[in-house]
Amino acid sequence: MKKSKNNKKHLFGVILAGGSGTRLWPISRELYPKQLLKLTGNKTMIQQTYIRLKKFIPLENIYIVTAESFTNDIYFQLKGLGLNRKNIIREPFQKNTAAAIALASKIIFERNKEAILLISPSDHIIGSDSDFIKAAKKSFEIAKDGFLLTFGIIPAHPSSEFGYIGADRKKTYKGAFKVKKFVEKPTPKRAKKLIQEKYFLNSGIFIWKAEAILAEIKKFLPKIYRAAELYSRNFNEFLKIFRSLESISIDKGVLEKSKKILVLPAKFQWQDIGSWKSLHQLLPKDTNLNILNEYVISENCSECFIQGTKKRIVVGIGLKNLIVVDTEDAVLVSHKNHTHQVKNLVEKIRKNNLAQYLQHPTVYRPWGYFTVLEEGKNFKVKKVLVEPKQKLSLQLHRKRAEHWTVLSGKAKVIIKNKSFNLSPHQSIDIPIKTKHRLENPSSKSLEIIEIQSGNYLKEDDIIRFEDKYGRK
Amino acid sequence: MKKSKNNKKHLFGVILAGGSGTRLWPISRELYPKQLLKLTGNKTMIQQTYIRLKKFIPLENIYIVTAESFTNDIYFQLKGLGLNRKNIIREPFQKNTAAAIALASKIIFERNKEAILLISPSDHIIGSDSDFIKAAKKSFEIAKDGFLLTFGIIPAHPSSEFGYIGADRKKTYKGAFKVKKFVEKPTPKRAKKLIQEKYFLNSGIFIWKAEAILAEIKKFLPKIYRAAELYSRNFNEFLKIFRSLESISIDKGVLEKSKKILVLPAKFQWQDIGSWKSLHQLLPKDTNLNILNEYVISENCSECFIQGTKKRIVVGIGLKNLIVVDTEDAVLVSHKNHTHQVKNLVEKIRKNNLAQYLQHPTVYRPWGYFTVLEEGKNFKVKKVLVEPKQKLSLQLHRKRAEHWTVLSGKAKVIIKNKSFNLSPHQSIDIPIKTKHRLENPSSKSLEIIEIQSGNYLKEDDIIRFEDKYGRK
Repeated sequence: MKKSKNNKKHLFGVILAGGSGTRLWPISRELYPKQLLKLTGNKTMIQQTYIRLKKFIPLENIYIVTAESFTNDIYFQLKGLGLNRKNIIREPFQKNTAAAIALASKIIFERNKEAILLISPSDHIIGSDSDFIKAAKKSFEIAKDGFLLTFGIIPAHPSSEFGYIGADRKKTYKGAFKVKKFVEKPTPKRAKKLIQEKYFLNSGIFIWKAEAILAEIKKFLPKIYRAAELYSRNFNEFLKIFRSLESISIDKGVLEKSKKILVLPAKFQWQDIGSWKSLHQLLPKDTNLNILNEYVISENCSECFIQGTKKRIVVGIGLKNLIVVDTEDAVLVSHKNHTHQVKNLVEKIRKNNLAQYLQHPTVYRPWGYFTVLEEGKNFKVKKVLVEPKQKLSLQLHRKRAEHWTVLSGKAKVIIKNKSFNLSPHQSIDIPIKTKHRLENPSSKSLEIIEIQSGNYLKEDDIIRFEDKYGRK
Repeated sequence: MKKSKNNKKHLFGVILAGGSGTRLWPISRELYPKQLLKLTGNKTMIQQTYIRLKKFIPLENIYIVTAESFTNDIYFQLKGLGLNRKNIIREPFQKNTAAAIALASKIIFERNKEAILLISPSDHIIGSDSDFIKAAKKSFEIAKDGFLLTFGIIPAHPSSEFGYIGADRKKTYKGAFKVKKFVEKPTPKRAKKLIQEKYFLNSGIFIWKAEAILAEIKKFLPKIYRAAELYSRNFNEFLKIFRSLESISIDKGVLEKSKKILVLPAKFQWQDIGSWKSLHQLLPKDTNLNILNEYVISENCSECFIQGTKKRIVVGIGLKNLIVVDTEDAVLVSHKNHTHQVKNLVEKIRKNNLAQYLQHPTVYRPWGYFTVLEEGKNFKVKKVLVEPKQKLSLQLHRKRAEHWTVLSGKAKVIIKNKSFNLSPHQSIDIPIKTKHRLENPSSKSLEIIEIQSGNYLKEDDIIRFEDKYGRK
């Protein structure tokens, strides 16, 4: 195995971060999916993924493919780890993995004709980074020879949450097997049978040459290939085609059809948190097999996952096998064996015109975050937190006036061309249609209460003139 | 049975409303107990009780005995039904029913030496008012002859939540039986046996002449009698003695000892909501035996009581026999067969220094209500609602400044001797140590955001100079 620097420059990482998981609602939301959450430690899932890849792939070769709406959050989470904004590939519409991979492969192929890609989901749990790196390096050696490789996981128990891969164990290549069959989310009964027949779980981690996957995409998904080609040549034309693309996974669109697919048994620990139940299985538990956070008071509870918030305690009495997750605007109470239905319930919420519950009331921005405390006809009350040394864009609202009162910290406020310094309890009015900017010049957090008034109070009433975070 | 007006003027009602039930936490709280809640309709429990009594007892003869801290809420709830503030007897300390009844009996006896009292809890459910009135009238006829009467309920099923009364069915007087024995909250096993032995439940509804009960109190609880005597003669002396009184129920202190006790089988429906489980039993259910309010989305749930709030939905999946009650600052999730433990959990909360959860974040005042939205070091953010044509007291705070912004409605603000009229989005500062007053002069509700700042932000930092509701 060659380990020259020369060789390493052909290695690329592509992190798929466009998914808007609803299976961990109400913690994950449409605008705040699983990859952005800290589920298993003090790093978010995408941070863990990024750190893992940059241990063996050059930083400038790691790309993130994501939806426009997650770009800010992802950049905010990864910039400290070295992410350059240019390495974020923004999908104008969510079109599943085939289109995302086509786009990233084409962009990378144009940079490097010999590129080998490691495609990784952004929300999986990998046991040990060094095991993973060892396996990845082996996979690169196979991919070099033109094969399309996926890691196969040996299932611990039957599950209907994942896809399965059947291998032809007689046809091997450098330790990998030829793929016989793909099975998408089987029934529990079928899953049991598949395990007996030594099927693997499909990890969704793929390794292949950009050239090889593009050839197969061109063959099986010509419209998606055409769109990817246009991306850097004619963006408007690209947009037009991309919008109308079929939403299809790379598994269904290419892997199930191609003859070049191999599966390499994964020699690393792998977990996809497909439900609250699997999160409960995964995390350390107390002597009653409970997972309770500091905002829970309980009695006679066992095998439960209960989570309160700083603003609200949860009291649990006589519960067993229950998931209780409290958030600012929604509470989930589910039996552990029913958490796969969370997805359906989220659909029910959407159909009941309660779409506000599909988004978080606290919204993260590059400069900090805000929470809506109260809303009514013609008014909205927000608590805004600006991180030390950060500032919002120089902006203007066409349809609302704002009134700011400092709760703690120091604020520098610009209105038109004047600058004001505000201390706690001081307040200021921002008239409608007036250029303004809020800044925290100090090294402590700034908290303010913002009271908006006007007959249109949505976030899209904003014109940005200058922005520290490139959001103009 | 005489029905002359002359006769009716001797009838008095005493509603006991000093209890601070914790068994329906988090809906009921220390400062907002069960009697103030709408549990079974669009009237609160105490409103239902007051309406029932005033159907056959002269309005000016109905008294409420309660704790100082509930006085405002009770007056606010009953003034529309005709309650005069003078008919509220305020207990300076909570001392259980013996002291409350002694106090009321003495006050009424001094007004009318022939008074017959109907003592009623303020939080029970009575099936039909006319059945109750019929029974009450019968009971008056017996009480006239000097007996101490309690209504006995025929238990539907064994319960450990109540007290039981054993009757000597051979000794009858006008349909009532002589009482043999009192049994306080028996074990489930004993409760079963008591039912077999035809014990009654103790309704806690008593009928007797003021003169008769005072004689027994003097005999068995002389210290309490002495305190009651002092109430109108020497209030300071009364306070001193009352403070040191033993906390004892009338059942334990008098009924278990007196020879004059009769039990009259109740010919009306009666329920005491002793737990969430009994509330679930009582209220109408859907086809899956669930009780769900409009803020709940559910799937595969049965025999549950689930309650969301306007600000937060509750999603229930795969639940059975569960109580889920969400409030602004606390969520209860309890198995239905464990709801009797709610009381213990409330104690646990107290011991864990989380006493804030024993009070509601929304506090009702005679002029409207307020809710704390945010709290931090040196600041507090409140939403304040002032009902049409109401005003807060003319007041001053020694340790905090306030900043008010109108969200909706019209405000009249007095600061020192100046008056200001504020419309939505206008704001004003109330400096520390400055006399001020907030008024809603209009016929629509006024909503404001109040931001307090200072190093002491508790409600007791208030000096009232003038108050519409007599709270000086």
